[in-house]
Amino acid sequence: MEVSPVYMQSDDSEQDRPAYPRVFPTGEARKSDHLKAGLCVDFPVSVVLPAGGTGERTGLQTPKQFCPFLGRPLISYTVESFERVSWIQTVVVVVAKENTGLMMDIIQRFQHKKVLVVPGGSTRHRSICNGVAALGEQRRPAAHKPKVVIIHDAVRPFVDEDFLHKIATAAKEQGAAGAIRPLVSTVIATTSEGYLDHSLERAKYRASEMPQGFTYDVICEAYQKCTESDFEFGTECLHLALQYCGTNAKLIDGPPTLWKVTYKRDLAAAESIIKETLSQSACLITGGLEAAVALANVLQKAFGALDMVSTAAGCQLSITTVTMFNVLLTNL
Amino acid sequence: MEVSPVYMQSDDSEQDRPAYPRVFPTGEARKSDHLKAGLCVDFPVSVVLPAGGTGERTGLQTPKQFCPFLGRPLISYTVESFERVSWIQTVVVVVAKENTGLMMDIIQRFQHKKVLVVPGGSTRHRSICNGVAALGEQRRPAAHKPKVVIIHDAVRPFVDEDFLHKIATAAKEQGAAGAIRPLVSTVIATTSEGYLDHSLERAKYRASEMPQGFTYDVICEAYQKCTESDFEFGTECLHLALQYCGTNAKLIDGPPTLWKVTYKRDLAAAESIIKETLSQSACLITGGLEAAVALANVLQKAFGALDMVSTAAGCQLSITTVTMFNVLLTNL
Repeated sequence: MEVSPVYMQSDDSEQDRPAYPRVFPTGEARKSDHLKAGLCVDFPVSVVLPAGGTGERTGLQTPKQFCPFLGRPLISYTVESFERVSWIQTVVVVVAKENTGLMMDIIQRFQHKKVLVVPGGSTRHRSICNGVAALGEQRRPAAHKPKVVIIHDAVRPFVDEDFLHKIATAAKEQGAAGAIRPLVSTVIATTSEGYLDHSLERAKYRASEMPQGFTYDVICEAYQKCTESDFEFGTECLHLALQYCGTNAKLIDGPPTLWKVTYKRDLAAAESIIKETLSQSACLITGGLEAAVALANVLQKAFGALDMVSTAAGCQLSITTVTMFNVLLTNL
Repeated sequence: MEVSPVYMQSDDSEQDRPAYPRVFPTGEARKSDHLKAGLCVDFPVSVVLPAGGTGERTGLQTPKQFCPFLGRPLISYTVESFERVSWIQTVVVVVAKENTGLMMDIIQRFQHKKVLVVPGGSTRHRSICNGVAALGEQRRPAAHKPKVVIIHDAVRPFVDEDFLHKIATAAKEQGAAGAIRPLVSTVIATTSEGYLDHSLERAKYRASEMPQGFTYDVICEAYQKCTESDFEFGTECLHLALQYCGTNAKLIDGPPTLWKVTYKRDLAAAESIIKETLSQSACLITGGLEAAVALANVLQKAFGALDMVSTAAGCQLSITTVTMFNVLLTNL
């Protein structure tokens, strides 16, 4: 499939970025800001975010990655989680062709700087493959082929720098690395007639989650060698790396925040986490920074004209206030 | 372990039950009220609800089954889902000894009529076993040993009559039946060193969920024959039925609403579903029933004195209004 990436990266420094509330997934992630030196990686890392899903399991017309939370689409939070990591170069967002315009609007409105938009394929693997291919075709003077590619889901907005660092480092060392989580339910094998065949011993199995990391060479080779059937029906990149490159992925226990927005009920859960993390961020500067509070009052007036909290019906005032503190946190 | 059930069943008819908002999990479930004749079962069915969990995965001090939603604990919604099914006789709630008083308060406050409280054991299987044993010890004149026992989780509040009917009927015919759902994540086997061993072919496996149903004889025999190790480490009743009674459970695809409140984020999801279903119920009578609206006004004043919506901060008025309509729906 022809890949026509639409480039949205710029060389603007982080300081030029307009203020917008940042999401800090956990207290740990926040703390990691003070440990950046220790977390830096010395090899180029880029990200592929397949976002071509239609969201049929949420029962909503809008694909869930584009659903707004406090006025901002879910995918913008996910992109932001990667953009704020200094050692990540490019975030390739792979979207269905009909959503390219929507994605470009999101990039412009929320001032994303590291994003490359690539048209998706007919399956998840084809979309990821398009994204990986686009990373090899960059022609900007300063761009390098990444050493490691991190693959993530657009609908897992809460990923922190510490964990990305673990995945990137393990991927470089082992060729492939993936996040795992304990199984929530017992997994059972069924007979063709719909009866219980056997149940798996839960301790030996894990749920495979995202993010996953690969050296660029491994993920390219896996996609070059895999079959049409893999492209059509496969779901697991780690499995392709094992089957076609002989690379056994290192598996790393991820935090519960890696969960994926799958069903309609997950939208409420995601919104609650976004609200809570915004409010936690706000707490960090209410201690004794009188100047910050004064500035918040000024900014609050300015923000009154913007339509940034329109979906938070009933909570508009408090969310606006939280937004202000968060803006301060970003700018100070 | 000695079982000392605390009986809360009464012979009061459904009409005597004080008005309280009912939760209707889905449109389908609502519709089923009009199909009751077709859904009735002609054999005695009872329920065991293990509710001894400590809720450590939510990160909250209150076990999640006792967390309030719109002023009502989660477990009360779950009990209510079963109590409103006319052909279910008894709901055995198995709680940790230290929570017996709390559970008795909930029963009294929310006027549950079919509940038997039984002290839990040190593991999930020991708790379920206590619950099943209590069903065999009933000494009330009209009570019969149930033909089928349905086992469910206290923290899966959304279960509808149609699906319970499927489970009960299949359990009677096959000896055992269980709800299954598609796997959300790929399941992978890990090596002892933490590397990918292989990934399971997703189409052949399912997540085993609740409710599950058993003939009374099968579940009793399974617990009589199983080992201390099963009691200590086992998680799957269906597996015990297969291993000790040779009973292959019939597996039945369940709706997404069967999901389990596991993590803190799930509390927000559960609250959103409860609010939505209450509001859907309200819509059913806002058409042209002027008498109902007038009655709502009277009831609204009476309810003003009660602490039934205290946790719905910021939404108190609207939830109270919805509650009124729902009360009407129950009484008309």
